Amino acid sequence: MHIILLSGGSGKRLWPLSNDVRSKQFLKMLPGTEGQQESMIMRVYRQIMTADSGASITVATGKKQVSSIRNQLSDKVNICVEPERRDTFPAICLAASHLRDVQGVPEEEAVVICPVDPYVELPYFRALCELAELAGDGKSNLVLMGMEPTYPSEKYGYIIPTDRQRISGVSTFREKPDLETAKEYLRRGALWNGGVFACKLKFLLEKAHEQISFVDYKDLYEHYGEQKKISFDYAVVEQEKSIRVLRYAGTWKDLGTWNTFTEAMEGNTLGRVTLNETCENTHVVNELNVPILCMGCKNMVIAASSDGILVSNKEQSSYIKPFVEKMTGQVMYAEKSWGSFTVLDVQENSMTIKVVLLPGHSLYYHSHEHRDEIWTVISGRGTALIDGEKRTVAPGDVISMPAGCKHTVFADTELEIIEVQLGREISVEDKQKYELPGDCGLIREN
Amino acid sequence: MHIILLSGGSGKRLWPLSNDVRSKQFLKMLPGTEGQQESMIMRVYRQIMTADSGASITVATGKKQVSSIRNQLSDKVNICVEPERRDTFPAICLAASHLRDVQGVPEEEAVVICPVDPYVELPYFRALCELAELAGDGKSNLVLMGMEPTYPSEKYGYIIPTDRQRISGVSTFREKPDLETAKEYLRRGALWNGGVFACKLKFLLEKAHEQISFVDYKDLYEHYGEQKKISFDYAVVEQEKSIRVLRYAGTWKDLGTWNTFTEAMEGNTLGRVTLNETCENTHVVNELNVPILCMGCKNMVIAASSDGILVSNKEQSSYIKPFVEKMTGQVMYAEKSWGSFTVLDVQENSMTIKVVLLPGHSLYYHSHEHRDEIWTVISGRGTALIDGEKRTVAPGDVISMPAGCKHTVFADTELEIIEVQLGREISVEDKQKYELPGDCGLIREN
Repeated sequence: MHIILLSGGSGKRLWPLSNDVRSKQFLKMLPGTEGQQESMIMRVYRQIMTADSGASITVATGKKQVSSIRNQLSDKVNICVEPERRDTFPAICLAASHLRDVQGVPEEEAVVICPVDPYVELPYFRALCELAELAGDGKSNLVLMGMEPTYPSEKYGYIIPTDRQRISGVSTFREKPDLETAKEYLRRGALWNGGVFACKLKFLLEKAHEQISFVDYKDLYEHYGEQKKISFDYAVVEQEKSIRVLRYAGTWKDLGTWNTFTEAMEGNTLGRVTLNETCENTHVVNELNVPILCMGCKNMVIAASSDGILVSNKEQSSYIKPFVEKMTGQVMYAEKSWGSFTVLDVQENSMTIKVVLLPGHSLYYHSHEHRDEIWTVISGRGTALIDGEKRTVAPGDVISMPAGCKHTVFADTELEIIEVQLGREISVEDKQKYELPGDCGLIREN
Repeated sequence: MHIILLSGGSGKRLWPLSNDVRSKQFLKMLPGTEGQQESMIMRVYRQIMTADSGASITVATGKKQVSSIRNQLSDKVNICVEPERRDTFPAICLAASHLRDVQGVPEEEAVVICPVDPYVELPYFRALCELAELAGDGKSNLVLMGMEPTYPSEKYGYIIPTDRQRISGVSTFREKPDLETAKEYLRRGALWNGGVFACKLKFLLEKAHEQISFVDYKDLYEHYGEQKKISFDYAVVEQEKSIRVLRYAGTWKDLGTWNTFTEAMEGNTLGRVTLNETCENTHVVNELNVPILCMGCKNMVIAASSDGILVSNKEQSSYIKPFVEKMTGQVMYAEKSWGSFTVLDVQENSMTIKVVLLPGHSLYYHSHEHRDEIWTVISGRGTALIDGEKRTVAPGDVISMPAGCKHTVFADTELEIIEVQLGREISVEDKQKYELPGDCGLIREN
């Protein structure tokens, strides 16, 4: 099965754990295998491979998520990167041309498309396999998965099927209805539209070429910014006559708010947390190294990360977005393809961060125009390249890099470095990248 | 007026802002002059000097508080340091001999003794001046201040006066009564015993020599650890026949718990805090650099520091102590006589801290046996002394000090340094102090 996972979202609703560079699908807060916590994307990957060990996964996403995906799934998935965000129709067109032109997938093969972020169980992925089979049988151009509603929701779109069979035709689509209309839909056997569907790759490419003028993946990638923002539902699904829907009745939750997210947690706490005996229905997630003590908390969600601290009544937590939008500060922690960084101290003319490089990984070879940097290695071993000169590094080693100095470091074992940045204009934009010198004997793997 | 301020307390009840080295009297959370926040001890100092600009203050305290007192009040007060904690009778005897033998105070002069931590207003200090005058008139050996009760408290000791006059004799003392007994005391015009009294220095010294065999301050200091733990109330006040009490009816609050402490705050928040419109009767103190967002919090106190985070219902917050006692971790922030330090990162074999040195101050000249240290200066200017060699330091300078290397730094302007400590056994005990070399031209002022 070929599967395109749509990975979007700015992640403001799960602040302070999610931020601009870490969407909710990357939060390692769900119970995984062997007692480890896993993220939504790690969970989805594991579930897909359990349902179909031969599945080929392509994650369609924006630039900001590439590091997190590589950090959590390494090279086990293909990544199709949108140069900028353009809604689902252009994103799916780009992913479809990636499958054809980059991965060489035959156009007759079936492709399943689904969002990365619903919280689901294994039967959902078994249903996706069935969806791929239905797409392959050629009896309709498009096959949707319709979720059996559990209540008359006003926040979902509805698929109105032609009958109540497990697999049926589609009569029409309806956007978010009011409560009374939603109740009427449920009486008529309507299904929630979860944005999950399957078709042959050929069909996706036909629709892409019908509405966008492009030659191949490379051409579409280069002109991606010119595409208009339009959803695949609107551009394709709702226009299509040759269409079927498969009913799915298992777990399907949107973990988009703290209130719903905490329901999927295994216990009430993650990290260093003490709840006294008078706490009730309270969930606490602590990513900091210091303890949280909660006393007499009722129906609350508390979350702490290096970006900030949320203390909220559970019901109120759904209204977080406008407050978080005002809090655009320094990103204090980020996962990168090569490891992670944590901001330890910010002053007017300096910033101190901790860099963790995973074994076998390295930074880009780069320099800064407006700041000096000083590395102090605190653990691990590796090789630094400083203005073309190689040197091995170990705990206690110090390297000073004035502005303009080209530098990188390769980790042999996990390498931890305290980096002090000094300058009047410290900014992530101040970074020039270089090719590694051909004779240095170092090769970047990531 | 000579005044002995008793400064004790381990500060567990106001965790995470107070800790072993920072008792509640040093928390800068009260509204001060010119829009600045001040601590209880800063507030008490300011109030005493307003009531009596000629007052001479001696703080009787333990070793751990000396740095904080010097940091907040510099050399404006005398400090009488108990080598170890022995309750109030030995502490007051030590302070009395300090007044006589170190400060040269004549024995005929009156001395007022009071705890540093009640939250009071200026009339309280005017009453202290009156108390000193009464002690000076020689009509009784001891004069107490009795607080007019505002409710039948079960947690205070009571003074039962001989009559209801403003100044009266004392009939007897009673310890924490039950509610019904407390009500009866109030009907009889009883007063709360706040541990505030005045007498001539001579009287204190007589009582000291009666019960402790010692020659002078130095002698008592050296044998201080042998003294038994006994309160001044028990050893002296309750035995004394020649005694009067002055009624005081103004503000007198114990800010010993979060519930009472927050009542003395000017607004509901300190630091980077957002309360949404659904929060009610909630106080938040944030010493961290990251924002706290509170939504739908009712009757809560939230406090965050580099030691930890408390999220508590206000009433529950009085039961914090046993939980905090279990959380004996690394002290993450401390005020020192020379400035402060903040722990930024703790790993198995390393610790990264930020050191802030105040202008004109310096560290002890010292070395460590089991760890290497690396300094990176991030702001300010000063002079370092490394194994006897002087060098000026400025932002960007790096100094590596292997184990055994003697080092210190003197700040010309406020100096900020990132210090990386590397070793298998990092501990505050691993510190050898040295005299500065006579020819180095540097003198420690603090």
